[in-house]
Amino acid sequence: MAVAIEVPRKTKRIAADDAAERSEARLHSLAKSRLVIEGVSPEIDGGRFAVKRAEGEVLTVEADIYGDGHEKYAAAVVYGASGGGEERETPLSYVDNDRWAADIAFDTPGPHRFSIIAWRDLYATWRYEAEKKKTAGLDISLELTEGRQLVTAALESGRGTKADQKLLKSLVQLLEKAAAKGDAEAQYALLQYGDVVRLLDATGIRTHLTRYHSEVPVWVDRERAAFSAWYELMPRSQSNDVTRHGTFDDVIARLPDVKEMGFDVLYLLPLHPIGKTNRKGKNNTLTPGPDDPGSPYAIGAPDGGHTAIHSELGTFEDFARLVEATHAHGMEIAIDFAIQCSPDHPWIKAHPEWFDWRPDGTIKFAENPPKKYEDIVNVHFYRGALPSIWYELRDIVLFWISKGVRIFRVDNPHTKPFPFWEWMIEEVRRVDPGAIFLAEAFTRPKPMKRLAKVGYNQSYSYFTWRNTKTELTQYLTELTQEECGEYMRPNFFVNTPDINPRYLQTSGRPGFQIRLALAATLGGNYGVYSGYELCEYIPVQGKEEYLNSEKYEIRAFDWKREGNIRDDIAFFNRIRNSEPALKSFRDLAFYNFWNENILYYGKRTPDGSNFLLFIVSLDPHKPQGGNFEVPLWELGLPDDGSVAVENLVNGDRFTWTGKMQHWWLDPEALPYAVLRIGT
Amino acid sequence: MAVAIEVPRKTKRIAADDAAERSEARLHSLAKSRLVIEGVSPEIDGGRFAVKRAEGEVLTVEADIYGDGHEKYAAAVVYGASGGGEERETPLSYVDNDRWAADIAFDTPGPHRFSIIAWRDLYATWRYEAEKKKTAGLDISLELTEGRQLVTAALESGRGTKADQKLLKSLVQLLEKAAAKGDAEAQYALLQYGDVVRLLDATGIRTHLTRYHSEVPVWVDRERAAFSAWYELMPRSQSNDVTRHGTFDDVIARLPDVKEMGFDVLYLLPLHPIGKTNRKGKNNTLTPGPDDPGSPYAIGAPDGGHTAIHSELGTFEDFARLVEATHAHGMEIAIDFAIQCSPDHPWIKAHPEWFDWRPDGTIKFAENPPKKYEDIVNVHFYRGALPSIWYELRDIVLFWISKGVRIFRVDNPHTKPFPFWEWMIEEVRRVDPGAIFLAEAFTRPKPMKRLAKVGYNQSYSYFTWRNTKTELTQYLTELTQEECGEYMRPNFFVNTPDINPRYLQTSGRPGFQIRLALAATLGGNYGVYSGYELCEYIPVQGKEEYLNSEKYEIRAFDWKREGNIRDDIAFFNRIRNSEPALKSFRDLAFYNFWNENILYYGKRTPDGSNFLLFIVSLDPHKPQGGNFEVPLWELGLPDDGSVAVENLVNGDRFTWTGKMQHWWLDPEALPYAVLRIGT
Repeated sequence: MAVAIEVPRKTKRIAADDAAERSEARLHSLAKSRLVIEGVSPEIDGGRFAVKRAEGEVLTVEADIYGDGHEKYAAAVVYGASGGGEERETPLSYVDNDRWAADIAFDTPGPHRFSIIAWRDLYATWRYEAEKKKTAGLDISLELTEGRQLVTAALESGRGTKADQKLLKSLVQLLEKAAAKGDAEAQYALLQYGDVVRLLDATGIRTHLTRYHSEVPVWVDRERAAFSAWYELMPRSQSNDVTRHGTFDDVIARLPDVKEMGFDVLYLLPLHPIGKTNRKGKNNTLTPGPDDPGSPYAIGAPDGGHTAIHSELGTFEDFARLVEATHAHGMEIAIDFAIQCSPDHPWIKAHPEWFDWRPDGTIKFAENPPKKYEDIVNVHFYRGALPSIWYELRDIVLFWISKGVRIFRVDNPHTKPFPFWEWMIEEVRRVDPGAIFLAEAFTRPKPMKRLAKVGYNQSYSYFTWRNTKTELTQYLTELTQEECGEYMRPNFFVNTPDINPRYLQTSGRPGFQIRLALAATLGGNYGVYSGYELCEYIPVQGKEEYLNSEKYEIRAFDWKREGNIRDDIAFFNRIRNSEPALKSFRDLAFYNFWNENILYYGKRTPDGSNFLLFIVSLDPHKPQGGNFEVPLWELGLPDDGSVAVENLVNGDRFTWTGKMQHWWLDPEALPYAVLRIGT
Repeated sequence: MAVAIEVPRKTKRIAADDAAERSEARLHSLAKSRLVIEGVSPEIDGGRFAVKRAEGEVLTVEADIYGDGHEKYAAAVVYGASGGGEERETPLSYVDNDRWAADIAFDTPGPHRFSIIAWRDLYATWRYEAEKKKTAGLDISLELTEGRQLVTAALESGRGTKADQKLLKSLVQLLEKAAAKGDAEAQYALLQYGDVVRLLDATGIRTHLTRYHSEVPVWVDRERAAFSAWYELMPRSQSNDVTRHGTFDDVIARLPDVKEMGFDVLYLLPLHPIGKTNRKGKNNTLTPGPDDPGSPYAIGAPDGGHTAIHSELGTFEDFARLVEATHAHGMEIAIDFAIQCSPDHPWIKAHPEWFDWRPDGTIKFAENPPKKYEDIVNVHFYRGALPSIWYELRDIVLFWISKGVRIFRVDNPHTKPFPFWEWMIEEVRRVDPGAIFLAEAFTRPKPMKRLAKVGYNQSYSYFTWRNTKTELTQYLTELTQEECGEYMRPNFFVNTPDINPRYLQTSGRPGFQIRLALAATLGGNYGVYSGYELCEYIPVQGKEEYLNSEKYEIRAFDWKREGNIRDDIAFFNRIRNSEPALKSFRDLAFYNFWNENILYYGKRTPDGSNFLLFIVSLDPHKPQGGNFEVPLWELGLPDDGSVAVENLVNGDRFTWTGKMQHWWLDPEALPYAVLRIGT
């Protein structure tokens, strides 16, 4: 028979000494994280970009947490302001399949962060195993000693409050007394007593405490960034007289009207001096008359550029009065930030290095071959313009912030470098963490999302072109349920000076009510461009553009003319503020309505105290109706349960009994219903 | 009329000087990455863990790549060995929706990495715009000058080979000659000429070159890690005589037999001295007879532990002969690495700090209350055992590597710390990058995946308990199509000493053929535990354990007894090597067969040159058949197309015409079919 040979084992050092040192350092570095914390959600691109929340808004943090072996664990979210400061802690609860979750919230705007800690919970493991052995009738005297040792260790660790420490001291004494008497039952009862368990949760040793490798950034906004109703207007068209250029005072005169409709944000199209070279005429022609005012997007004239005011609108004193009056009406001003220049902009002479020049010495106009935009030139951001134009543009924003403007609608941001936006928004936020930027990017999905990642608080969306039930359901599900919901907040504009939606060109007044209802209730942020309330719809033939657009001429409207939908607007803006469920963009659910022309959805506060149902016909031409499901299951009710219903449009109150109900919408009467349900 | 006021803009510095410096540094740091490279796939946990590939195996790299504006881009994967060295470059191709992709592969085992670069392709932008203008009949003389400038810039940049530079020089001369003559057509034709475009692709200026922020790690294995057929046996049962303890020489005598069945890996159950204290008797009883050999997992006796050989098996010289003989048969040895000790293991006295002790001074046995495993104690890895046990265990593996073993089946790795495995496998790979570790973890999904992430080359799986069409389809879809496919390679064992699957307890011989067919064709790695070829199935009543298990007694078998399925095993191991499609675990597709008892799937090489279809009845008891779809679409054929078919089981050749075909499987004849199709 052969004899076993014990072969001498290798020495600890397997290679050169420095390799051995690296190996030992690596060992200790890895050993620090015995528990696994992974699959953390939300976390955008591995923490490269911040999750967004408004102040007080719930952030549900989830992670996969586990370790080797069969021990019990405990875990918590730790969070606070970025760059140090006090750290709060909220316990995570076990969900399923090694997944844990907790809800947290941040109180103040600005940069924040969270991370996750987890540890072996020796006391929980002890309780579990001691109970199993006791139940099996085994001797647990050793277990009782081990339990006492865990309590003593908690006392010695000094964790918890002074009161906790005092309680621990008494507990140790009680346990020792019982042990001295040999009273196993008393010791066991004490160690499994509910209050003792809670005491040990708070003070027990955190064995193998592991912290998630990164601090997940969270940008916290003031509420307006997540919840706003915009009214967009062209200041020069507010005179009620096409022969007189409107002024800031004319805008002030319109404030009660806008306030009556319930808007939060008054968004003014560009205010700056307008170039004369290659100025556009009415309806975007290349042959302007001498009195044609030109497009306000052709920014810059000899009397100034992006920090100047077009002289016919007023002075900075007038503008200050407008800002003040707007605030007095409970609203805020938003202005346009459009980084392009008319050929007359002072920058062209002062900073030729900010522009592109052709081989023949002429400036390069904006173009999309074979189209040319000869009233506009674009700046560039690199070569001789880096970093001077970056500072210049940042300082323009800071200038307007000093004038009382905190909201900026940015024109075509996807045609300027993403790194510029990231840097500029960071810079501005150091001065005003409440500054809000809306990205007017209508481009491919990923660049739109990137703008939101680099810091934009709000984003234009594809909402304008999502009209059918399938389109709306798919798009809203993406926006509210997929990862982009963590950092991108769409602003659902029903129309803009550049978008006269085809749907509204043929829908008549009911179509305007329908699109309003959808935008105001599906969107946390939404907006209308003035004229919408009057159901303005006449297009340049075959195009999604308005005929006789304000972009190229002064217009005048009777803002209360017959057939307007001001009451609908006021209704939606009122319930947006009275019904808490409407404040959350993402707490949205689509339910079954057996009619492809009716969109049926619900919004509900996380605590369930406010629950609204919306039934919106998508057909502006003829009545639609059908059966639908009342989501009784979400209220914990059986299929034959009853709910109290209030029709928020007319105040009717009634009861639905049973899951299946019927509704009918006549677009000539009202194409939508808003119902509040409760038990 | 009010007068515009140009307000002096802010100075460049908005805060204290150091804040301004940070701001400028941040600006330049961000500005470096003008293009966006994100959504890189595969990348495991943000690059924390390596993607796995075998040498030569295709790695499809994808990323979202785009920039601001409308310019054209180009992009490439750059890759090579970790830690510097030569970097290869493969162009990425545009797929759709800002997604780009490329296939790369690595030639040698070891640590590698890839990253992505992208740049503005000025020449492509120029070609696009010049063509649009020319088509629109506009003057392009300025464009031609700009085109020449781009070629000149390429020449001046010095990129490309010497031959490229020579061609560029000629091209510049030709363009200048044509320009001097005012020959616009000739210049345009040259600049758009295919060879010129390719020349500029290779040499053109890479404007705004951006590199992905991280180097994605890729671990490259030798082929055996991804493609292997294991035969597991208990060495002491190879004597053909229950009264004689088998030896390494008995195992050598069985090699021709194992080779005849076509296996690659011969996996030996533990070889070490077995403890006597609390030794288990036959059928896991606590009352062993004096001759009972005990469980080989109770490792360690006075004559040695994990680096010793159980004396009845042989000496190290005998073991060396076994290793050599196995290699001579074209196979490799795998051994068990089970980190637990019998109460007699020398470590317990030498290293009490590696064990847990109770308050009464006794050692803590392995237990799962109220069950106790009194023939085994576990080591721990922290407190006084950190780092000494880590080094000890690493050195055990290195010891066996020095004895010619390169494959380790690791017992219960999920009950040892994940950081230990990560460190240990890294350490071992520095000595032998071809070392292979198989994780015997049957636990929850996430810990199983974590073991693969921290370095295990192969993983046991839930395959043994996936029997129905739905179960198999869902499980294989997860394993092959989801992210875990990038780093986890299951090894489909049909049975193990611990798992006598319920399915096989009642299936008869056809069930053994069925589960073999599934494991051998669905799994890149698969394994059988000896006795499977004999359709051994008798369980401990009501359990998934074998009666009279080799774990507790010496057994003897007639390895060629009637009713065996050696021919089936040899067939599958033969086609696994002759048919390239079987080498890839992830190139799997399930197709329609209108019978819930028949699983129908295909494997196909990426180039389509080898295309196999598998029709496997899951019903071992009665014949099953039905209609199925031939995937003509994958061959680019219409629904009424024809394919040549070869039945690999019997060599029959025939033609299928039309997408819908019929098949019939009688379990008494053969419950599976393997068909090779081609055009």
